[in-house]
Amino acid sequence: MTTKANATDDSFHVFDTTLRDGAQREGINLTVADKLTIARHLDTFGVGYIEGGWPGANPRDTEFFARAQQEIAFENAQLVAFGATRRAGGSAAEDPQVQALLNSGAPVITLVAKAHDRHVELALRTTLDENLEMVRDTVSHLREQGRRVFVDCEHFFDGYRANAEYAKSVVRTAYEAGAEVVILCDTNGGMLPAQVQAVVSTVIADTGARLGIHAQDDTGCAVANTLAAVDAGATHVQCTANGYGERVGNANLFPVVAALELKYGMKVLPEGALAEMTRISHAIAEVVNLTPSTHQPYVGVSAFAHKAGLHASAIKVDPDLYQHIDPELVGNTMRMLVSDMAGRASIELKGKELGVDLGDDRALVGRVVERVKERELQGYTYEAADASFELLLRGEVEGRARRYFRTESWRAIVEDRPDGTHANEATVKLWAKGERIVATAEGNGPVNALDRALRVALERIYPQLAKLELVDYKVRILEGRTGTESTTRVLITTGDGDADWATVGVAENVIAASWQALEDAYTYGLLRAGVEPTE
Amino acid sequence: MTTKANATDDSFHVFDTTLRDGAQREGINLTVADKLTIARHLDTFGVGYIEGGWPGANPRDTEFFARAQQEIAFENAQLVAFGATRRAGGSAAEDPQVQALLNSGAPVITLVAKAHDRHVELALRTTLDENLEMVRDTVSHLREQGRRVFVDCEHFFDGYRANAEYAKSVVRTAYEAGAEVVILCDTNGGMLPAQVQAVVSTVIADTGARLGIHAQDDTGCAVANTLAAVDAGATHVQCTANGYGERVGNANLFPVVAALELKYGMKVLPEGALAEMTRISHAIAEVVNLTPSTHQPYVGVSAFAHKAGLHASAIKVDPDLYQHIDPELVGNTMRMLVSDMAGRASIELKGKELGVDLGDDRALVGRVVERVKERELQGYTYEAADASFELLLRGEVEGRARRYFRTESWRAIVEDRPDGTHANEATVKLWAKGERIVATAEGNGPVNALDRALRVALERIYPQLAKLELVDYKVRILEGRTGTESTTRVLITTGDGDADWATVGVAENVIAASWQALEDAYTYGLLRAGVEPTE
Repeated sequence: MTTKANATDDSFHVFDTTLRDGAQREGINLTVADKLTIARHLDTFGVGYIEGGWPGANPRDTEFFARAQQEIAFENAQLVAFGATRRAGGSAAEDPQVQALLNSGAPVITLVAKAHDRHVELALRTTLDENLEMVRDTVSHLREQGRRVFVDCEHFFDGYRANAEYAKSVVRTAYEAGAEVVILCDTNGGMLPAQVQAVVSTVIADTGARLGIHAQDDTGCAVANTLAAVDAGATHVQCTANGYGERVGNANLFPVVAALELKYGMKVLPEGALAEMTRISHAIAEVVNLTPSTHQPYVGVSAFAHKAGLHASAIKVDPDLYQHIDPELVGNTMRMLVSDMAGRASIELKGKELGVDLGDDRALVGRVVERVKERELQGYTYEAADASFELLLRGEVEGRARRYFRTESWRAIVEDRPDGTHANEATVKLWAKGERIVATAEGNGPVNALDRALRVALERIYPQLAKLELVDYKVRILEGRTGTESTTRVLITTGDGDADWATVGVAENVIAASWQALEDAYTYGLLRAGVEPTE
Repeated sequence: MTTKANATDDSFHVFDTTLRDGAQREGINLTVADKLTIARHLDTFGVGYIEGGWPGANPRDTEFFARAQQEIAFENAQLVAFGATRRAGGSAAEDPQVQALLNSGAPVITLVAKAHDRHVELALRTTLDENLEMVRDTVSHLREQGRRVFVDCEHFFDGYRANAEYAKSVVRTAYEAGAEVVILCDTNGGMLPAQVQAVVSTVIADTGARLGIHAQDDTGCAVANTLAAVDAGATHVQCTANGYGERVGNANLFPVVAALELKYGMKVLPEGALAEMTRISHAIAEVVNLTPSTHQPYVGVSAFAHKAGLHASAIKVDPDLYQHIDPELVGNTMRMLVSDMAGRASIELKGKELGVDLGDDRALVGRVVERVKERELQGYTYEAADASFELLLRGEVEGRARRYFRTESWRAIVEDRPDGTHANEATVKLWAKGERIVATAEGNGPVNALDRALRVALERIYPQLAKLELVDYKVRILEGRTGTESTTRVLITTGDGDADWATVGVAENVIAASWQALEDAYTYGLLRAGVEPTE
């Protein structure tokens, strides 16, 4: 067991609990492999401490600690095991739950302790004095066994309101027994920044302990509460990637760290790590299988996206006037959005971004604006489908749509057989370079079968299509309004190994919408490959 | 034009700008009908001011103001038109943009004014003095025409940092010219609460103006920044429903108002309105066609959802120990989540919630926990599919699955015809009450065709199915891990006029997953209708 220095030094702790508290989020279920992948991302990002779970409480967490120490060469982080103080009436040295924490091999252990008198009595069912003894005994035992110990005071802020003296005595007991940091937890998440700041200040003054903060986001203030605690003197912040956590979630690691680095001027990450933030945020979202939040501060794809026509024209003058930071500092980029509110300035900027010169042709820009409005009314969205937008734009600039093939018809069949297996078959009929082609293929679903049939039909004529791959596929049902039938929007991301591009299709059913998005995806792929249109 | 009193009195303003600034959010495109519907919801919720848009800037906003005043009998809110100060070098009385604001008939006008010296010079391209004159002239003119005027100082906080004296002179000029409230805007959203509090305090002390706050969420602190301004003496808060807005978004109306009412003890809404908050938040999300955020503070479906086995057992003792407020205060409810982390206590509580008595049968509860784990591993989620969970639970309690029919096979065909129309046809073959039934139907998509074919097949035997209706349909692609193919999860919500229920299906393709969810939906509908299982 080695005790490594923090990325910077140990005077300020960035402590991540995505793998423990973050995993409580509704919809998240992590495998051991998921946890290992996330731990690697967090270590790359440079957090000082990674709380990996509760070894002994379930086999998955036990396995994680064993494998993490074998398989990951941590560059920046120390691994932390989470557990509880010993049982009432026992001894820490003989408590199997405490022993499991030691067995995990983690160099640091976070113990959760009750700090709210009613919780001690009603949930723990013991006396206030015995609770203090449980804290003292467990911290001492773990220290004697050579571990660093942090103590999470659960429900601290509610407990402080109910019985401030008792809450503080838990902090004092933990600190005097050898806990390096005592963390004040707003477990129910009901606090506001001014309250957090006042309580943290008082507790530091009254106990002399080194304090940390663990904030939940139930008031929408977890990031601000975390910063308020730092303002009051806390030197350890517990956060989760993307704010994952129970109920509303936890304090989001990314805006907390960004504020500390960019607004406070503190150095809490290794050199260069902040510029990895957007990538790491999205990568972790992929691992936990949640769509990255488009509107997350700093790292969301919308975080530096400009839509208003008013702003768009001024951004041409000086982007810094309209951004609180340079998006590159956090690995994000400025984007101009194409939408019917955007107006001419946005379309021109977007054209420039795509390398399509619109010159000073006001009529042309006007036509593009009209066309976008009309299509968005039908349910298309170009904000998330740059490739479809570029095809539309080039169609207007060049006076006709780029076409490499013309579809005559297609058909998809999905069959559930009596033995429970499924057959998916698609047939496409199309024209390319003057030739009529009919092709059929099977797939693991109807869209996959259509995709394969389209390849079979076209690959002989356009061998460039061989390296195209469907990377992502999203379906959205657009609710029908005022009596109309609902429509379906499909967004497809396709890659050729060098780059990815997104296309959109809208139709009354999912298969037809997918077909449209596939047509655009292949057309754009051929355009990128420099193939001249033939139809 | 009538000037109505605010819901409470005029000493504190809850000012909503969902229809103007909120509409800048990526992905939102509001029709006039949408805007009218949202305005009705906001009025019901009891905000004092509804900023409806920029009349004159686009025909949609002009039409909105005309129709809103004709069609909506506002109970609580006053309608506010947003616009800019007059052009440099002109006069407000002759400025067509200013005239359009008057023509809108709105009793209150918010003028946006530049407060940052560089913006005046680079974006507005005029002198600092002329900008002050534009503010003075425009405010005076609108006051002379009998309108109440609020002034939004754009980029105030960045401007204050660059040139505090100039920023304050804009506030002073607006206030002296007759603006009732001057709003300090953190337009780029880069501020933190401590900074906001310090600046608002100083500006109140130095100018004597009545101040408001408009915060953007780029640091994840918009709610806290808004409250920090109130702490410093601001008496007007500008927010948007669900925090919609440009880039990351605006200060979210709901947590701001909930904090003011429940944490500050202020009365800013009409009696009883806070309990409508969850419903209204979700209703507005539906209108703007965005999925309601599941993790939004106070109003998200996860906001009072408890997952951890640790908590679940303690919640049995006293729910108030684990919630910062009673969810009913905001119209939300506590939920127990079923997931593989939940353990026995959650399953028992969930059984109780569904009216399924699990008694003290530990083996039974253990079997349910195992079954849930196994299914979740395959991609099922019961957190969002209560009806499928209840069927699973009853299956274990009763020793066999409830069945009203047995599927032999089905087939769905989607055909794109040369004329561009689509044919969707489905055939189902099934057994019910000893009879083999084959039915075929068409639909507007393959799932709709399957749904209809299933009805055609079953309605003669189970006439109770006639009133069932598919209410919502969601598709999620679950990414394949470590080489496996991706799978598709479908969630279907079905209603019978009295209640809605959600079911889940998981398969390698969207049609097969939909079929599973449909089977569960119909089975649950028959169970609800009190029909005895037959198979």
